[in-house]
Amino acid sequence: MSDIAKEAGVSVATVSKVLNGSDRVSLETRSRVQELLSERNYERRTGARTDLTPVVDLVLREVSNPWATEIIAGAVEAARNAHATVAVSVLPDRGGHGSWLEDICSRGTRGVIVLLARLSDREKAVLRSRGIPLAVIDPRGEPDPSVPTVGATNWAGAYAATRHLAELGHKRVGIISGPRDMFCSRTRMDGYRSAMEAAGLPVDPELMRWGDFHVEVAFKHASTMLSMANRPTAIFAGSDLQAMGVLEAARLLHLPVPTQLSLVGFDDIPLSRWMSPPLTSVRQPLAEMAATAVRLVLSDREVPSTKDRSVELATTLVVRESTAPPPRTLRRAS
Amino acid sequence: MSDIAKEAGVSVATVSKVLNGSDRVSLETRSRVQELLSERNYERRTGARTDLTPVVDLVLREVSNPWATEIIAGAVEAARNAHATVAVSVLPDRGGHGSWLEDICSRGTRGVIVLLARLSDREKAVLRSRGIPLAVIDPRGEPDPSVPTVGATNWAGAYAATRHLAELGHKRVGIISGPRDMFCSRTRMDGYRSAMEAAGLPVDPELMRWGDFHVEVAFKHASTMLSMANRPTAIFAGSDLQAMGVLEAARLLHLPVPTQLSLVGFDDIPLSRWMSPPLTSVRQPLAEMAATAVRLVLSDREVPSTKDRSVELATTLVVRESTAPPPRTLRRAS
Repeated sequence: MSDIAKEAGVSVATVSKVLNGSDRVSLETRSRVQELLSERNYERRTGARTDLTPVVDLVLREVSNPWATEIIAGAVEAARNAHATVAVSVLPDRGGHGSWLEDICSRGTRGVIVLLARLSDREKAVLRSRGIPLAVIDPRGEPDPSVPTVGATNWAGAYAATRHLAELGHKRVGIISGPRDMFCSRTRMDGYRSAMEAAGLPVDPELMRWGDFHVEVAFKHASTMLSMANRPTAIFAGSDLQAMGVLEAARLLHLPVPTQLSLVGFDDIPLSRWMSPPLTSVRQPLAEMAATAVRLVLSDREVPSTKDRSVELATTLVVRESTAPPPRTLRRAS
Repeated sequence: MSDIAKEAGVSVATVSKVLNGSDRVSLETRSRVQELLSERNYERRTGARTDLTPVVDLVLREVSNPWATEIIAGAVEAARNAHATVAVSVLPDRGGHGSWLEDICSRGTRGVIVLLARLSDREKAVLRSRGIPLAVIDPRGEPDPSVPTVGATNWAGAYAATRHLAELGHKRVGIISGPRDMFCSRTRMDGYRSAMEAAGLPVDPELMRWGDFHVEVAFKHASTMLSMANRPTAIFAGSDLQAMGVLEAARLLHLPVPTQLSLVGFDDIPLSRWMSPPLTSVRQPLAEMAATAVRLVLSDREVPSTKDRSVELATTLVVRESTAPPPRTLRRAS
């Protein structure tokens, strides 16, 4: 640390402040120190801890979600193969993250994987200064080009789902996507739109909704859409949980799936095949996505630059019993 | 370590073997050394690590299970409040656990919580020798009296579920419980039996099945029971996942729930209220169970004896739309 301080022409205290992400350092000084740290490949954690079982930190917004569960399961499995342990932390979307960062730094971490959560710029700077690799699964907001991301081919998955519905003869197809600020939900919306256009079907803004990947909001959107005079005969849901909400809305409106309403989900969580009826869904390789992220952070030690290492894994449409041709009476509805 | 060796009249290498759970130490020597270790409250982990954020290890058989998810979520929340981190490991039911124990010991752990998994006697001995607290949620096999356990009032929950069905007028009530070697499934079976007897209803061995808490086996059992000439008009499932399997079996046999079949689950996972129809279920306070286990292992440092600290948290019956009186035609079926 004193070498770096000397070379940067600052005090050791300043270098320490940069390492701790303090904002009482000018932007200029901070970048100069960070550059030197990264040149020297400074790694606090390499001290006494190299022979220990490394901990990989998985950081998410909520655990209680079958999608997150599959990611956790995949990460635990991949970490075990690398003799590492996965530590799980939940960071709320808004508000401070408390002492989370200090806690994991004091305990030691080999890398951080962020899932739907949002780290502050300060948190990212601290990780960078300490040489702690970071990877993001399904980023929120604009993807940060300096951070490797792992995702699935969301556009292609949504395109395949919508084309499947169009090929069955549906003309009024609704979509309930995820949050508007998430890259993966926007991409799914675009895949839907392109497939509709390719099939020569008009897109009706009334049938395009943003959700939050959860059951409840999807239930409300579906209840509204399915009560319209000119209701959709098919809905593409941005997650299998959202598809559960659509199923319940359809049940309450006495619209059996698939005879009155076709339904496609996204994710293909293990429970989809046990829904009533078994759900047609776009499969994301969630365990593989998690394993990829684990490998990214564990292999990062010699590669300080994390650019150009974003990965998109393929999605596949799994057709089950929730999709069928539209009811005869509504086939010309559009 | 050398003090202990001297007092026990063995070499330091032998003490070290006991600490590492080696089986090349006679039972007698092992107990003598362990007793001394425990008297001196030997704690390897107290060395340089006391100021670090402690890690609590959650060990389970599988992550991908909504029941496990709720436990993980509860543990993460409780740990965060104590400035601790939860590390998740999966240990297969059969076969070796590889280097798991050495890995967590080398990295340091403040305590181990076991969930449906089974530790070997050697693993338990290593934890005990190192003063690492252990707690078990829903033990497999006979509960080990030396290990604190956390569970729910399974008997009372099953009794309440069965009584609810009897009060609705059901006479043929089936049960699909969990694995036969699990304390909680056996207790649920007993609660069912007692409630049937209290209601003056015969119990038919054909209607009493053991499962594995998962969808598939329950689906098979339900398919068999519901195809019987004298089929049950209600089924009590040992988990909400099993209830999903029953729902699917009933759908394929054109027996709508609840008009033709009443169904009660167990756990009350968040998705139960979104099943079609919303599931009546016995609520286990899963997050609280996890938090209790976290508190048990974190508070254990001054209390080397772990006896008499088993906790049973209350269950509650949550009545939704999957239960109703039996169909008129089958009311006298028994």
